[in-house]
Amino acid sequence: MAKMKAAVFVEPGRIVLEDKSIPEIGPLDALLRVTTTTICGTDVHILKGEYPVARGLTVGHEPVGVIDRLGSAVTGFREGQRVIAGAITPSGYSAACQCGCSSQDGAAEKYGFKAIGGWKFGNTIDGCQAEYVLVPDAMANLSHVPDGLTDEEVLMCPDIMSTGFGGAESGNIRIGDTVVVFAQGPIGLCATAGAKLLGATTIIAVDTVPARLEMARRMGASHTVDFRANDPVGEVMRITDGRGADVAIEALGRQETFEAALRVLRPAGTLSSLGVYSSDLKIPLGAFAAGLADLKIVTTLCPGGAERMRRLMAVVQSGRVDLKPLVTHRFRLDQIEEAYDLFSHQRDGVLKVALTP
Amino acid sequence: MAKMKAAVFVEPGRIVLEDKSIPEIGPLDALLRVTTTTICGTDVHILKGEYPVARGLTVGHEPVGVIDRLGSAVTGFREGQRVIAGAITPSGYSAACQCGCSSQDGAAEKYGFKAIGGWKFGNTIDGCQAEYVLVPDAMANLSHVPDGLTDEEVLMCPDIMSTGFGGAESGNIRIGDTVVVFAQGPIGLCATAGAKLLGATTIIAVDTVPARLEMARRMGASHTVDFRANDPVGEVMRITDGRGADVAIEALGRQETFEAALRVLRPAGTLSSLGVYSSDLKIPLGAFAAGLADLKIVTTLCPGGAERMRRLMAVVQSGRVDLKPLVTHRFRLDQIEEAYDLFSHQRDGVLKVALTP
Amino acid sequence: MAKMKAAVFVEPGRIVLEDKSIPEIGPLDALLRVTTTTICGTDVHILKGEYPVARGLTVGHEPVGVIDRLGSAVTGFREGQRVIAGAITPSGYSAACQCGCSSQDGAAEKYGFKAIGGWKFGNTIDGCQAEYVLVPDAMANLSHVPDGLTDEEVLMCPDIMSTGFGGAESGNIRIGDTVVVFAQGPIGLCATAGAKLLGATTIIAVDTVPARLEMARRMGASHTVDFRANDPVGEVMRITDGRGADVAIEALGRQETFEAALRVLRPAGTLSSLGVYSSDLKIPLGAFAAGLADLKIVTTLCPGGAERMRRLMAVVQSGRVDLKPLVTHRFRLDQIEEAYDLFSHQRDGVLKVALTP
Amino acid sequence: MAKMKAAVFVEPGRIVLEDKSIPEIGPLDALLRVTTTTICGTDVHILKGEYPVARGLTVGHEPVGVIDRLGSAVTGFREGQRVIAGAITPSGYSAACQCGCSSQDGAAEKYGFKAIGGWKFGNTIDGCQAEYVLVPDAMANLSHVPDGLTDEEVLMCPDIMSTGFGGAESGNIRIGDTVVVFAQGPIGLCATAGAKLLGATTIIAVDTVPARLEMARRMGASHTVDFRANDPVGEVMRITDGRGADVAIEALGRQETFEAALRVLRPAGTLSSLGVYSSDLKIPLGAFAAGLADLKIVTTLCPGGAERMRRLMAVVQSGRVDLKPLVTHRFRLDQIEEAYDLFSHQRDGVLKVALTP
Repeated sequence: MAKMKAAVFVEPGRIVLEDKSIPEIGPLDALLRVTTTTICGTDVHILKGEYPVARGLTVGHEPVGVIDRLGSAVTGFREGQRVIAGAITPSGYSAACQCGCSSQDGAAEKYGFKAIGGWKFGNTIDGCQAEYVLVPDAMANLSHVPDGLTDEEVLMCPDIMSTGFGGAESGNIRIGDTVVVFAQGPIGLCATAGAKLLGATTIIAVDTVPARLEMARRMGASHTVDFRANDPVGEVMRITDGRGADVAIEALGRQETFEAALRVLRPAGTLSSLGVYSSDLKIPLGAFAAGLADLKIVTTLCPGGAERMRRLMAVVQSGRVDLKPLVTHRFRLDQIEEAYDLFSHQRDGVLKVALTP
Repeated sequence: MAKMKAAVFVEPGRIVLEDKSIPEIGPLDALLRVTTTTICGTDVHILKGEYPVARGLTVGHEPVGVIDRLGSAVTGFREGQRVIAGAITPSGYSAACQCGCSSQDGAAEKYGFKAIGGWKFGNTIDGCQAEYVLVPDAMANLSHVPDGLTDEEVLMCPDIMSTGFGGAESGNIRIGDTVVVFAQGPIGLCATAGAKLLGATTIIAVDTVPARLEMARRMGASHTVDFRANDPVGEVMRITDGRGADVAIEALGRQETFEAALRVLRPAGTLSSLGVYSSDLKIPLGAFAAGLADLKIVTTLCPGGAERMRRLMAVVQSGRVDLKPLVTHRFRLDQIEEAYDLFSHQRDGVLKVALTP
Repeated sequence: MAKMKAAVFVEPGRIVLEDKSIPEIGPLDALLRVTTTTICGTDVHILKGEYPVARGLTVGHEPVGVIDRLGSAVTGFREGQRVIAGAITPSGYSAACQCGCSSQDGAAEKYGFKAIGGWKFGNTIDGCQAEYVLVPDAMANLSHVPDGLTDEEVLMCPDIMSTGFGGAESGNIRIGDTVVVFAQGPIGLCATAGAKLLGATTIIAVDTVPARLEMARRMGASHTVDFRANDPVGEVMRITDGRGADVAIEALGRQETFEAALRVLRPAGTLSSLGVYSSDLKIPLGAFAAGLADLKIVTTLCPGGAERMRRLMAVVQSGRVDLKPLVTHRFRLDQIEEAYDLFSHQRDGVLKVALTP
Repeated sequence: MAKMKAAVFVEPGRIVLEDKSIPEIGPLDALLRVTTTTICGTDVHILKGEYPVARGLTVGHEPVGVIDRLGSAVTGFREGQRVIAGAITPSGYSAACQCGCSSQDGAAEKYGFKAIGGWKFGNTIDGCQAEYVLVPDAMANLSHVPDGLTDEEVLMCPDIMSTGFGGAESGNIRIGDTVVVFAQGPIGLCATAGAKLLGATTIIAVDTVPARLEMARRMGASHTVDFRANDPVGEVMRITDGRGADVAIEALGRQETFEAALRVLRPAGTLSSLGVYSSDLKIPLGAFAAGLADLKIVTTLCPGGAERMRRLMAVVQSGRVDLKPLVTHRFRLDQIEEAYDLFSHQRDGVLKVALTP
């Protein structure tokens, strides 16, 4: 049986490259030869043991590749095509998919009810930080890369662009809205870009790192606030003449940003949460107006599926959002440990890395 | 200057009947002669000093009455007409009204930003537990009572029917949904009725009082769960074959029901919160799936305005919802202290009282 | 190769029972042994040659049956289970499905762009007026029949209940709405029931046949109007005190009802069209207010898919809508020609027939 | 009584400047001293007698001005403030306003039911091509002009920007959508800009005038199609690889563009109509897929109200849309006849004129 290199989780603190068998494909699957992939903040949670996955699992959930083989029931694609698949891989046939919440497809399969959402790659099945990855329900998940787009140009589509834009979409942004985005890591930067793409006119980016605030301006922020130097609530009230924000996007996953996001909202505003939290959250009574302020708190898991990927690549192709500056470092797959070391310590101003098997 | 009787807040523990001047009307106002009103759970919070209002304020926010005088700028109405006004009285011209969140009209006027929502009667202006009440922005708020409907039949429209239905509406209930309603007080019972009205097919009412669970069945519940005797999460999972609830409505205002409402949800479900809370809330990490489950938490303040009232009275007139059984006790206005005593201690199976000046 | 009886389209005017091979199944398919099915108005269009299908095609698109065999890639089901499938059978993996318009899955496959919608059974593939039917994309389309429900109780789910309710849903009905339903055939009757299920309080059923208007009252109509005896526009204005209807549902497919549906609308109202038209439509300038009245015209093809079917069967199970009275006549499959003769001539007060192979 | 100059409709073909009394204000009104206004295509319809208004009525509905006097019941404003008001002036208190369709406020007042929508200025009350204009329901309609914005920069807000954006909004545009805009007059150009503002990535502008197609590119069009030289349906199918458009916006008001807009749509697409039609419309059976394609046709009248104006001025202020190039010609109010002559004959590449009293 043919072998490949794959980055596997061994134990907390150790993700290493190992030899694994190239997967066998079932009737609905596709086998991709991975040409470019990347590391996500969630992978760092896995590395640190904060998010549990099975030992020996291949990690990674952002594949760009070429179709190597197709399952017997797969139609509409052919071997050799350049494709991407989303980080979340809905089946298409589940009740969740048919209810309009395809990201929650298969939610119950791992830890029981509602535990993890429909994220499979590098979570419940082998992921794509490897030479090959098996894509389940290929017809629902493979999307052709348009000619003329490079791997790096579409590398953000599977996860951070879909997630960041999703946070803006779930906020139901309207023309003329004020949107505050808390944290300007890769997801937050995409949320900032998404807020602009949807018609917000006052976009306030909050972070503590000047370089990230600077990047936020490139992504569309009209104002920036240093979370440590200024009270973001006061700043938002000042900028909006006391109206408050229509939408606040949380893109960090901490109590302090969650709470600040709630506090900056106008009555009937929406807190759109993208963060992956690691402890219970508190909703302060006052910020919640005792439940009387028509506030909304919505959470969004990265939307997946072939059509979503097609649309995100159309955004790239249109030139309306340029995420190339987010790829700050490049590694070969056999440098995976070095890449994790850099990315997990957020050294050298890293935003995203590109990994090439 | 002519005098009237009015129930005023004196100090925590004391709401008493006093003589006050009949209000002077401004150009946009209407003066109603109150014919029937009622006491709300929020009034009990005021009585106990848990919700602060100015000393000397007339309490009450659920008026049925007859137009006594109209402001000089008011058109479309005439003196002598039977009308109701909602508990929440949007102006019509505020930014909040024009943004689709009219309940938050004037939200900033009392305690600062986002403190109280747009509730005015018995909160920021004199209320209707009195012989007369002044209705602000009369054209936006007065609604004719159709011939053939009694005062008691429309007495629930201004607040609990609008609030309870609002909780069901904010949950975005779809045909075939499973909806769980936590607490079957007057608001919860109306939420149960609202869930039925919107096409839910499995409606699970939760409470601890058998008589309220029995009333919930009359309002449309298909299942009832005793919160003390059974784990509501387990019961909901059993009833739904493990799918969980599409929508959970919180109608009590406590941590334990808020948390249970979150736990019974399916992935991508909606917690529709109606409760008036009195302390910070906790969102447990697991029930929130670390932010990854596409959950929504939405809060709703009683929708007001003349058109809302017209529609609720149309529901009464259609016979589709019968709230008459909720009026369990009747008092004259001069028995107001007795009425508060009964209602605040929840004696004699009281659900709602009717007060007649 | 084993044979079965199947009703096939031979030529305009002739649908006859023939022997056909029991279908071979592909990896994603299921073979059902049909236990009950019915005839739809669309089948009559096919019979008359008004809607073209291939000669030799098995007609029918409303199957209740038992799983006989499952494709190699199908999981989650087992042979012998009682199931239904919707008239429309979305794949789950198409762009249409992932865009929230699964009814339009495969729309382009037959006559070119936008020609027919995603309806396959008895249109582009063999249908279910036969002893066996092959269900494509079985995982997306099979739905278990709950114990305790008879074949006839769920027979309306695949098409008319889904279509009629869909018309009400697309109208975005709100609590207290006035809804007018034009034509009270099986689809219109289900639209009437759907309007009630969604919270409309004034439901005006329009038809010319007294028995159908009587049935409309059983389905939830609060008012009935004889289209020939009265001007429906005048009647609606009278009933609504000149406000007009919030939503008008067209369930016949003719210019005169389409136009009347437009005329009864209030400004910013919605015409929800379910009819299958056979000629160009005219939008009168006045009824359209020259384009200035914020009117909407929406069309809905029967929503399909397993989750939809599960929800509709939940409605039946809840007892909230009772469609049993719609099954007025019963035939064996070998009486199919007799059944078409009765149904196509609308004799004996027929609403729907049940066919049992 | 003080006099002013006003452009009044005398008879078909004649709009002339006359002396009129400066209006008396009622309690809810504001009197504006007009500083800049413009001429709309609808005014040309009035000039030609195609759209009926009363003889002697002052025309014009796009005011920029300074508050001269305020009605006795008006609060929140003061004399001397620079403001705009929308072309449509909702009262705030009508049922239409409270139903979310404030543009239809007062719809029934002129020609009976549904005849004209809620447009008042220069239609049912005196308009703003004058030295002074009376704004009804001032609190609902006046919006401060932010410091730093010139009259001409906000001159498009009252009508064409609100209408054009409204067409894009009603189309419910999503990230990655393909939008086709038929006709690139001022409204169509704003619809093109609005489509870009809402996240469309393929924006196809259709017109017959090269200069307008060139301006469409400045407003955000990614592709342009000459309606006369090319079949727009074929072009759209070519550009979209046969998928068709998600949304088509009609901005001319003719059968041929309405029909083409329907034909370019994908299944389940939306035709968003902004045109003011002057004859009955035909919906071709094939383009409508006999009613089976889940298509939507939505119409939008210019959204008005103070909050809408505030948001549109925020768009201008953000620099995201630059409509200054649309003001191609400037006149004094006393040159009004010359201005109408130029504008109605579409001479000299005129797009919009600025008129200064």
